[in-house]
This record gives sequence, C-alpha cells and structure tokens, in this order.
Amino acid sequence: MSASLNPSALARLLGQWHPGAAPAYRELADVVRLLVLDGRVALDTALPSERALSEVLGVSRTTVTAAYALLREEGFLSSGQGSRGRTRIPRLSPMGSAFPASPASGTPGRPAATPGHEATELGFVPPGLAAPGLAAPDGLIDLAYASLPASGEVVHRAFAAALTELPALLPGFGYDAIGLLPLREAVAARYTAAGAPTTAEQILVTSGAQHALNIIIRALAGRQDRVLVEHPSYPNALDAIRAAGCRTIPVAFTSMHDAGAGRGPGAEGSAGGLPAPAWDMQALRAAMMQQRPKMAYVVPDFHNPTGQLMPDRQRRQLVRIAADAGSVLVVDETLRALNLDGAVTTPVAAFSPAVVTIGSLSKSHWAGLRTGWIRASEPMIQRFAAARSSLDLGGPVMEQLAAAHLVRALDEPLPARLGALRDSRAALLELLAGHLPEWQTERPAGGLSVWCRLPAPVSTALTVIAPDFGIRLAAGPRFGVGGAFERYLRVPFTLPPEQLETAVLALRSAQDRLHAAPQLRRTLKPAPAVAIA
Amino acid sequence: MSASLNPSALARLLGQWHPGAAPAYRELADVVRLLVLDGRVALDTALPSERALSEVLGVSRTTVTAAYALLREEGFLSSGQGSRGRTRIPRLSPMGSAFPASPASGTPGRPAATPGHEATELGFVPPGLAAPGLAAPDGLIDLAYASLPASGEVVHRAFAAALTELPALLPGFGYDAIGLLPLREAVAARYTAAGAPTTAEQILVTSGAQHALNIIIRALAGRQDRVLVEHPSYPNALDAIRAAGCRTIPVAFTSMHDAGAGRGPGAEGSAGGLPAPAWDMQALRAAMMQQRPKMAYVVPDFHNPTGQLMPDRQRRQLVRIAADAGSVLVVDETLRALNLDGAVTTPVAAFSPAVVTIGSLSKSHWAGLRTGWIRASEPMIQRFAAARSSLDLGGPVMEQLAAAHLVRALDEPLPARLGALRDSRAALLELLAGHLPEWQTERPAGGLSVWCRLPAPVSTALTVIAPDFGIRLAAGPRFGVGGAFERYLRVPFTLPPEQLETAVLALRSAQDRLHAAPQLRRTLKPAPAVAIA
Repeated sequence: MSASLNPSALARLLGQWHPGAAPAYRELADVVRLLVLDGRVALDTALPSERALSEVLGVSRTTVTAAYALLREEGFLSSGQGSRGRTRIPRLSPMGSAFPASPASGTPGRPAATPGHEATELGFVPPGLAAPGLAAPDGLIDLAYASLPASGEVVHRAFAAALTELPALLPGFGYDAIGLLPLREAVAARYTAAGAPTTAEQILVTSGAQHALNIIIRALAGRQDRVLVEHPSYPNALDAIRAAGCRTIPVAFTSMHDAGAGRGPGAEGSAGGLPAPAWDMQALRAAMMQQRPKMAYVVPDFHNPTGQLMPDRQRRQLVRIAADAGSVLVVDETLRALNLDGAVTTPVAAFSPAVVTIGSLSKSHWAGLRTGWIRASEPMIQRFAAARSSLDLGGPVMEQLAAAHLVRALDEPLPARLGALRDSRAALLELLAGHLPEWQTERPAGGLSVWCRLPAPVSTALTVIAPDFGIRLAAGPRFGVGGAFERYLRVPFTLPPEQLETAVLALRSAQDRLHAAPQLRRTLKPAPAVAIA
Repeated sequence: MSASLNPSALARLLGQWHPGAAPAYRELADVVRLLVLDGRVALDTALPSERALSEVLGVSRTTVTAAYALLREEGFLSSGQGSRGRTRIPRLSPMGSAFPASPASGTPGRPAATPGHEATELGFVPPGLAAPGLAAPDGLIDLAYASLPASGEVVHRAFAAALTELPALLPGFGYDAIGLLPLREAVAARYTAAGAPTTAEQILVTSGAQHALNIIIRALAGRQDRVLVEHPSYPNALDAIRAAGCRTIPVAFTSMHDAGAGRGPGAEGSAGGLPAPAWDMQALRAAMMQQRPKMAYVVPDFHNPTGQLMPDRQRRQLVRIAADAGSVLVVDETLRALNLDGAVTTPVAAFSPAVVTIGSLSKSHWAGLRTGWIRASEPMIQRFAAARSSLDLGGPVMEQLAAAHLVRALDEPLPARLGALRDSRAALLELLAGHLPEWQTERPAGGLSVWCRLPAPVSTALTVIAPDFGIRLAAGPRFGVGGAFERYLRVPFTLPPEQLETAVLALRSAQDRLHAAPQLRRTLKPAPAVAIA
C-alpha cells in the first residue's frame, strides 16, 4: 500500500518544528525519522522531491538534500531510482548499536530514536521478548507504554488450572471462531452483574481489544465510511480506522478546542490544574447528526489518554445521539477495571441493546494474555463472527481456558493493583508538580496515565530528544488527527516510583534543553490550526 | 459494509441449480440459504426485488415471494421496510432445534443447513467449544473441515513446559508485536535445516496462517490492487483478499480449465483416476506479466484443495516469474509437514530471498494452538510488523512459549500422525472407488483431503441436501471465484475410518437422491462459463 506525500502535507506534519538553525539538515532528518518511527508517516511513502520540499519549507535545497542523504544512510529512506525516496525502517541491529546517534543530539553512541524496534502498543519496542522489568533493553525508560507487568501469581495459577482442563479439549478440531463457552459465560456474567444483562451468545472472544476493533470495523464500516472518534483518542484505534480506509471524524473535548492550535506560548508558567477535559455533548450531537457516521468509537471509562470518566447522564445522552444518527456506538472498556477512585458508573451497554462494547484483559491483568471480547446483540455478534473468519480463524484454546479463570475471579488481583496504581499516580502528579510546575495536569480518575498540557507545542521536539535523556516518549500528535496535540504528552504512571522520578527528571532536563537551545526557540510558533468537526 | 446484489449476480450464484420443480420456492430458499451460510452471499446484502429476480430466473413471482417469505420466517432475510430484504444469519438456538427443517429435505426436525453456527475453517461450526470427538454437536459428520485433533500428549507436554517458563516473563509488559525470541529462533532453525538459511529476525509470529495472510495483504496490497491466486484456492484466503478490497486474479491448474464450465455431464460414469491437476506455468507467467499483481498467493506444498505438490523445477520458475513481474510471491506452507509419501522438495524460500512464506502449527499439530508465522527478508518483516500493529498488538506469551517447544520437536508427533493419515487416505480412496465409482479422484501426495470431480455440476445441490444424510459439506464453489467448481467437492480424510465409511455412504445416498429426484435432473445443465485469466 505504497503512498506518496506531497510537500505541504509533510510540512504540516513537520509543523512548528521548523528547521532553520545550524545544522538544519540534521534537525529536519531528526523530525522526519520520528514521524516514520511513530507512524505519522507510513512506511513505503514517497517523500516530496527535494526541490518541492525546500520551497514549501523555505529552506535551502542543500538542507533538504543533506537531510535526505542522512536518512538514506541511516536506512530510513530508500536509495532507489529517481529522486523520491520511500520511507523505510532500517534492518534490525541486535543492540541498536549499528545506528548512528542523532548528530543533533550530541550523545554519540546512543540512537536518537529507537531504530530496529517494532511498533507495538505505541511507538516502538525491541523485537522479541519484552524484557523482564520495565526498562527497555536499550536502557531507556519507556514512557510510550501505558501497560503493567502481569498480576503474576494470579495469571500463573489460571494457566495451571487451564493445563488440567486442556486434555478434554485436545480431541476437538480446535477451531473456534466465537470463543470457548466457559469464557463467554464468565464474561457475560460480569456484564449481567454490572447491570447489563448478557448471555454467552452475546459475547465474541477476540485476541485483545485491537483485534476486536478490527473485526467491528470490517463488519460495520467500509472504505470511505465515516467513523467518529473522540479527539484525542487511542492511537492504535486511529490507525485501525485509517488502515480500513475509513474517514475519521474527530470530536474535541470541551477544554481542548485549542488542542493543536497552539495559541502562542501564553499559558507558559501557569502552573497547576488543567480545567478537566469533558465530553462536549453538543459537539458530539452536531457531528453525529451532520456526518451520520457508520460507527462512533468512544472510551468513556477512563478515556485514553485523558483519563476522564463519562458520567451516567452523558452515557444516556450518547446512546440517544447514536440512535438518532443511526450510528453504531462502539464503547471501549479496556480500562474500566482500573477504577482508581471507586467511581460508580453504569456500563454504556446497560442503556441500549444496540451498544457494542469492547473489553480486554490486557490492562487489568496482562498484555501478554491477548484476550479480549466484543459484547453486542446476538445478531450483531453473528455479523462479527462472519466478518472475523476473513481475519483469522479463532482464538487459542489454552489461552481461553486460562482467561475464563481470570474473568471469573476478575476482582481478585484488582485491590493490590489499584493500590499500587493509586500510589504511583500520586507520585507522578507530585513529581510533575515539583519538577515541571509549568505543565498543566489533571488527576485522572482511573486508567494508567496523565495527559499533560505543555507550556508550548513541543511534544514532537521533546520526543525526538528524549532518548538522549534516557527516556522514550509517544508524542502528543500520535493521539490526534492532522497534527493536533503538539502541546500534549501522555505520561503513564505504570513505572515503579523510583523510575518515575528518574523519568520526570529526564523530562525536565529535556525541556530545559529545548528552552536553552536557541535554534529551538523558533519552534514555539503556532502550529497550524486543526479542523475539528 | 452493507451491499446489494443485482438479480443477474444472484442468478449467476444460483447457477445451474435452477428451481422449477414443485415446490420450486423451497428449492430456491434452500439454495439462497446455503449461499448465505457458506459465505458466497455476504451478510447484510440486499437481495434483488421479487419482480426482478423472477424475471431473471424465469420463474413466477409467486415462487420468489414464497421463497423470500420462507427465508424471512427462518431468519435468513430481514423483514424490514421496503421490498428488498437483507441477508441475515438467524439468532443462535442452543440445539439448533428452533429451526424449521428444510421442508424440501423431507426429514423434519433436523435443520437442512446449520443455522446458529459460526463460520470457521470452512462454512460453519457450532458456537463455543469444538466438541471432543469429530462429530459435530448436531450429530452431523463434518466434511467441511480438513483438520485434525491435537497431537494430544505432545501439545499438553509443551504447555506444561511453558508453564514453568511463564513466571520469568510475567514481569514484562507482555506486548510483543514480532514474537518471542525463542519461538522465532526455533522457526528460523527449521528453515535453515530445510535449505533456506534464516535468522530469527526474518520471522514474525502470528496467530495462525490466516492472520499472517491478513498482515501481508495489509502491508502489500491496497484496495483495487491485484492479487493472483491458484484456482481453486483456499476459501479463507480468497475471503481475506476480497475483504481487503483487492482484485483476485485466478489462474487455473492444467487439468482444470473446464473447472466451472460444466461442459455437459459427458464425463458421467467415467470412473477411475483424474488426470493430475498441475500448475500451468505458462498461464501463470502470462497472468503475472499481463496483470502485474502486487502479490501472488500460492500453496505449492500439498495445495489446498487439490493436494498437489509443486516440483522444484516449477518452484524455481515461479520465483523467476514473480521477480520478472515485480510481484511478491507469498507461499503458504501450512500443509508442508503433512508429507504423506515422503516427497523431497525444497522450500520455495530457498530459491529467492524475496519470497514470503507463511507457516502454521494448525494442521501439523492442532488448530487450537493458533500459532503461525511469516518468514521473509528482514526489511519485509519490518513492514509486516508495522502493518500488524493496526490489526492487533501481538500474540499471547504462554502460547508462544508452548509453540517454541513444539517447533523444536516438530517431527516428534509426525510419524504417528502421518501413519494415521496414510491409512485414512487409503481408506477414503477405496471407499470412494467402491461406492462412488463415477467420481474421479486423484491420490494426493500430502495434506488432508481429496479433491473429487463429480459426474455433474451438483456440488452446491449436494451440499444443500447433505445434512439430511447426516453430513456437512463445503461446496466446490467455495474454493473458486465466480461460481467455478460446481463439479468438484473436497472430501477430507481426517475422520477415523468407521466415520469415513458412514460419510461416503451418505454421499452415495445424497447423490442417488439427486439423480432420482426428477426436478433435480434439470440442474445438470451447464454452469456459466468462468473467466480465468
């Protein structure tokens, strides 16, 4: 699926991080490399010609030529025939050491980005085994992830129990497109207990939430169909919608209408609480009624990345809006179990049988499980099951046996997990307030991360230089459409407190560096306005 | 992704099974129901208006009205506003008993098709647990599957070993987009041993072969791009290519140019061996050079469904053709381990580093494992890993640990498995020769099934009435494009000998019934010609 990028599209992605200082070519290469690595520029995309890009950016052609040459040398650009190189990710190098350090970064020997690493939850992790412990194998502290180690003993016990049940199933074919009955029953029972009466026939087991979303999109939304999303939203969901060729309709939160607009650095220094972002029901209704999207993908339970929790009143409204617009409401409850403050809300599914809900054990238990599900009406589940068979032929049996045990005792590991998360949330907020008082934060009611508003639109710039300070970040625009959220950064509180402190100190140093470097000052000019429906 | 079907498209699908006898409406309903159940008519497709369909089929409008009414009553057609009902699969009924028997089938109480069942490997299996043993829970012997029970003890032992290794990985994030290193190493070592030197960086672990194919398509072929396939080919692969919006370019085997053309029932009674279908390298080259497909999907190792094995000479040619055409050659080796006669061939990957290979444990070990892989060049694997993250975020850790053990000792369960398969292949061929001498068969060199040529284009008709005789079939056209292969039926030899005998006797009775019923005689007219590139 090779594409090409016209010069103004690339210029928009480069945004406010306009190169110009010496050596400008290195900065340009740095930003393009990041855009490729974090997926904002797809692989195998032809970059603009040197001439066209130099014109649009208002830099010398030599700068673009040198930047492209550097990217080519590093393996991020094909060195093919003709002038338009295509984006690549270089071949794996076992220790990352084969990569030139970013010359702009001044720390030779350590790669500026993380080449040779694979895209996973957000951005890139090393190929192969996730390392025990939370530091990435290249020694970087990974803030691109919002994920936790396993609820170890509980998970191990579930697999031990599953092992005793496995022999009874080995004589079967093993194919299982809808999911093992005991698991579907256990999931259904949880919805019923939470106020949304559910039968096992209303559950389809999937390989995690992302897989669930792909099945739903394949069944409900074709190419060019509209899909409404909150803005910001979960990057992998945005990717899945884009990959299916759907048109994304982003709807901003109330306090975020200026999200990517970057209205000057006026907010700089205004420490303290951010006005809580909230669902803008009026904007949602307007977008839904005007655009009539095939489906709307929302995360009302500890929204990712903002951490917001939608109140029941708004859930009811949302269901009504979707019905009025003739849209299928798809609710991602992946983070619902991580209810740090014990807030009481009703699952959206309880308000209408037409709601489609996505659930997963990845955040509540362990991402190494890869078990999720879809809850919907029976006819809808039938459609999903039919759509699924073109994607894959079902989930692994052993995994589902273990998952059934985990779902049945879902709350068992939660008190300890929530306790630890509450501590690290408090620690992170305190560290941010102490070391980065000019960042605006809001205490999330649940989930795994804090959505920080930066004093200036430097999220991509921070992400580019972060590895020099020992951390890996996911830039704010990964959570948005069309370059929004350069003023935002998602910081997870999933690390142990001592690592959190190191990470926040690194963020402080990185920001200081951005402020101290005169050539970066100029990057604080307003980002291009973002169209938000 | 709702669609609509114009009358002539439906007429083409109905093909030679033209209703006309009393009660014609029931026959029409039977065939439409099958088309919906086996996926040839997608769910949520608007059927033609009654008037239009009656005109095209040359039947009375009353016939179509009654057929639609019956389908509506059974839940296979929406009873919505307007005259154009949309295809549905009825809600689940625990025992299938809520469904009316096909009135045409004359066996009240047993559903004619298998409503309430989910699409999986081919056609439909019951929701939930695959039943221990090989009879489907509704009592039907399932010939739509070509899959085996697990190599039980081996699989159990692998999971027991994995359980001891799991604790070391529980502290990790669990996300793993490319696959656990020990598993990738084990898979790579197997390719190296087979003559295609491979590193762990050239392997991407997937959730089975179907998932692998989806990742490859997402990375390589966009909407409207051409994808070449053998004709016949594996139905789920055809579905995945179609679902991605690609254009399928089918290339026939040499003995099959008349595949769907149904040149009269002339072959009837000509018992004995079928001239072995073989890859038509000239046709392949012509199609590749003319159409320049983005990719070509082939199954050279015990081709599904024909069971053919491509000789090394042709493998070399194929690689050259793909290079000349600028197409990526994607080789599905899912069945390669099921080498019943010990034929010696070289993995296609050994002939060129550009080849992309799909592997899986589903057929060699158990479909309940859902572990497969892609083997390709490192840069290609990088592209696949990047494309994958929009589909799902990686495979389950425990499953991969177990799979690593199984791959390392891949050959351990094979002798017993191959021995049993050889016996059942011999038994099936003997049974077919004895009871259905007018069927033409060819002894497959490997794999799990025999591709039978019927004396008349009645594959769909047989499939429709099969449940009345206690068996479930996948109609020949499921393996083709545009209605081809009405003269063919894939019969797996994965059942134990005593069930095989029951199954073949059932096939005999079903065929006798087709011949005896005068209204079905008329169905033997030629099927529409199929365009084959």
